[in-house]
Amino acid sequence: MDVVVSSERFQSRFEVFSQIGETDRSGVNRPSLSDANKLARQQIVEWFEDAGLTVTIDEMGNIFGRRDGSTTDASPVLFGSHIDSQYNGGRYDGVVGVLGALEVIESLNDAGVETDRPLEIVAWSNEEGVRFQPDMLGSGVFTGVFDLEYAYSREDSDGNTFGDELERIGYRGEHPCEPRDIHCYFELHVEQGPYLDEQDLSVGVVEGVYGFSWLDARFGGKADHAGPTPMHLRHDALVATSDIITAVRRLTASGGSDLVGTVGSVDVYPNSINVIPEQVEFTVDLRSYDNETVDQAVERIRTEIRCAAEREDVSWSCEEIMRVDADPFDADCVKTVERAAKAVDAEYMRMVSGAGHDANYLNTVCPTSMIFIPSVDGVSHTEGEYTEWEDVVVGANVLMGAVTEQATITETTELHQ
Amino acid sequence: MDVVVSSERFQSRFEVFSQIGETDRSGVNRPSLSDANKLARQQIVEWFEDAGLTVTIDEMGNIFGRRDGSTTDASPVLFGSHIDSQYNGGRYDGVVGVLGALEVIESLNDAGVETDRPLEIVAWSNEEGVRFQPDMLGSGVFTGVFDLEYAYSREDSDGNTFGDELERIGYRGEHPCEPRDIHCYFELHVEQGPYLDEQDLSVGVVEGVYGFSWLDARFGGKADHAGPTPMHLRHDALVATSDIITAVRRLTASGGSDLVGTVGSVDVYPNSINVIPEQVEFTVDLRSYDNETVDQAVERIRTEIRCAAEREDVSWSCEEIMRVDADPFDADCVKTVERAAKAVDAEYMRMVSGAGHDANYLNTVCPTSMIFIPSVDGVSHTEGEYTEWEDVVVGANVLMGAVTEQATITETTELHQ
Repeated sequence: MDVVVSSERFQSRFEVFSQIGETDRSGVNRPSLSDANKLARQQIVEWFEDAGLTVTIDEMGNIFGRRDGSTTDASPVLFGSHIDSQYNGGRYDGVVGVLGALEVIESLNDAGVETDRPLEIVAWSNEEGVRFQPDMLGSGVFTGVFDLEYAYSREDSDGNTFGDELERIGYRGEHPCEPRDIHCYFELHVEQGPYLDEQDLSVGVVEGVYGFSWLDARFGGKADHAGPTPMHLRHDALVATSDIITAVRRLTASGGSDLVGTVGSVDVYPNSINVIPEQVEFTVDLRSYDNETVDQAVERIRTEIRCAAEREDVSWSCEEIMRVDADPFDADCVKTVERAAKAVDAEYMRMVSGAGHDANYLNTVCPTSMIFIPSVDGVSHTEGEYTEWEDVVVGANVLMGAVTEQATITETTELHQ
Repeated sequence: MDVVVSSERFQSRFEVFSQIGETDRSGVNRPSLSDANKLARQQIVEWFEDAGLTVTIDEMGNIFGRRDGSTTDASPVLFGSHIDSQYNGGRYDGVVGVLGALEVIESLNDAGVETDRPLEIVAWSNEEGVRFQPDMLGSGVFTGVFDLEYAYSREDSDGNTFGDELERIGYRGEHPCEPRDIHCYFELHVEQGPYLDEQDLSVGVVEGVYGFSWLDARFGGKADHAGPTPMHLRHDALVATSDIITAVRRLTASGGSDLVGTVGSVDVYPNSINVIPEQVEFTVDLRSYDNETVDQAVERIRTEIRCAAEREDVSWSCEEIMRVDADPFDADCVKTVERAAKAVDAEYMRMVSGAGHDANYLNTVCPTSMIFIPSVDGVSHTEGEYTEWEDVVVGANVLMGAVTEQATITETTELHQ
């Protein structure tokens, strides 16, 4: 299959789309179910229909566009991403995967190519999770991870529910949002990390997603006056916390593994310039593609917390509030993406994603893989997010190759199915 | 002079006074110019008058009680403390110095002793600074550190001004609040630190107060996703901050000096579990009785901040927002307190105060010293504040000795004056 996408048409659509909710600094502000998100949805639905797709909106507001295949009762190849953004986020995050999917359809239309399997493209609701938590809510309900009622009940900081806001913008569809028979799923997405840019590559063939552990920890010391309290009688919860921040950094350096670790949140009480910190609550985020590495890191940090508490004679607690195993994508789908990257002579590497995506949830119900394209300097979730347009086009062509290969029914894929 | 105070009368007054604004956990809640503070003032004025003192209220609401001496035109010996409390504070902080001063007067009255110099006792307004900042406002205006209008304009968190609230509770007096001729000042106060309790002593002869520096510092890094960002490309403002928390602790241990250091306040942005901290603002409090030690510590921490910023490749700033020199009390008054401690066979030590007191401001206009009594476990500013009653009585007797010595006019004190 030698169909390639039209860079010009794709870019022209991308520029038009980037004006919806555009910010002063060339980003976009289209958080989930906002008015700007509504306008973006209207544009997507219009373009899907213009491309001859059958559009359905499901109960979660996920937008599907279907192109029939020659084998009408075959399960479809699904591909897409999301169009909601961070507050003042970037133009590429999610959008390249949805508009890239649309461009694949248009190019197949132009080339008059009919696939064996139906093709479905999708824009998932509420991937970012900045207005309504948790993130990846649309794909989560679609794959049975969350109940619909749970999703509807999620509230933003003003107390508006997801369900009411979805109704308000007119995107609470009739179609059931539930697991169904999908042949496989592909997602084109910006890397949101620096690896591809650092190595000057155009494509990442994504083998899976890091597992992670989230720890919620606390030290409890004694709030004394910073003046009259001698050093040897202090029980400073912040000094103990600082030991852990250092320990997390040291652990990632000394483990000889792919472990990354972050203390992202610290809350000090009473947080006063002349009072010794009585209590500190903090979080630890530990990630690796190897589950055992994450488990060992959790144990190590727990030991560090216990030792720091002993040194400073403070109380401590440490609770694992979330634990997600590493998520290896389907080996066959990963190979499909790799073949597609080779077919267009893309400079690529196999890699693992540090962050979660809708693809993670899809991977629980059907064979899945992802295609990454570079984020310059690894920047994402800000207005400064940028990807060279040539790389976006290469990514869409890899998506084209992966989708069309999997949409072709051969004896092998039949067996696989 | 062999007059000693009456432990029973003193304690009975202390118990009555402790019921004003009493909290469930045996503390007191009498913040400055509150209704409970008004009741406490009324009780003080009543007792001052009962003791035969001439009461004057000045423009700042400072309450003075005067007992004439035989040399009517001599400058008075002034002694006292404050009766405002922290929110849910302790019963001893300030109160022992005011009721102790009253007990000295009563006991001299009972013994029929007339001093050469007039004696004046005082309850200063707004020592704590919890409702209206800055602290020590009453003694600050009295000694010319602050303007009256500045003091009146200070607002609490509800926007009420000090001046209006003083008027409201009926303690905006007519008497000018301004520097005048004072022979010397003594203040009996709980230590609010653990030294006396640790060494099982009853009295601290206070030679002066620590100087200190307050630093307001900031690191600016890069807010990346905690998953896809490799360790070697991070610019984590919190990791840099943790280096400084550790450096402050290390510096106090390695300096071979009396330096104490505290990072009391840390604010992390965006403070999210899975985002590398982009910005951290934090404070450093450095104290010593030696000004050069404080200066050197400030320079050292500034260097540490610069080095931490270089290691993590983050931006930094560090501003000294307050610098108060060490404040040695008058050598003669310190000796007076020491002689008084010896005279009542008190187990005492000479010491330096880590925290500021009204005595600091008085020390700018007249010879001054303080008498400390133990805070059990060093606890203060909380309901759990406690001092053994015997120690309170010893403190009051040392105050008696110091006051009566300085109130006696001899050739030496004339020369000193």
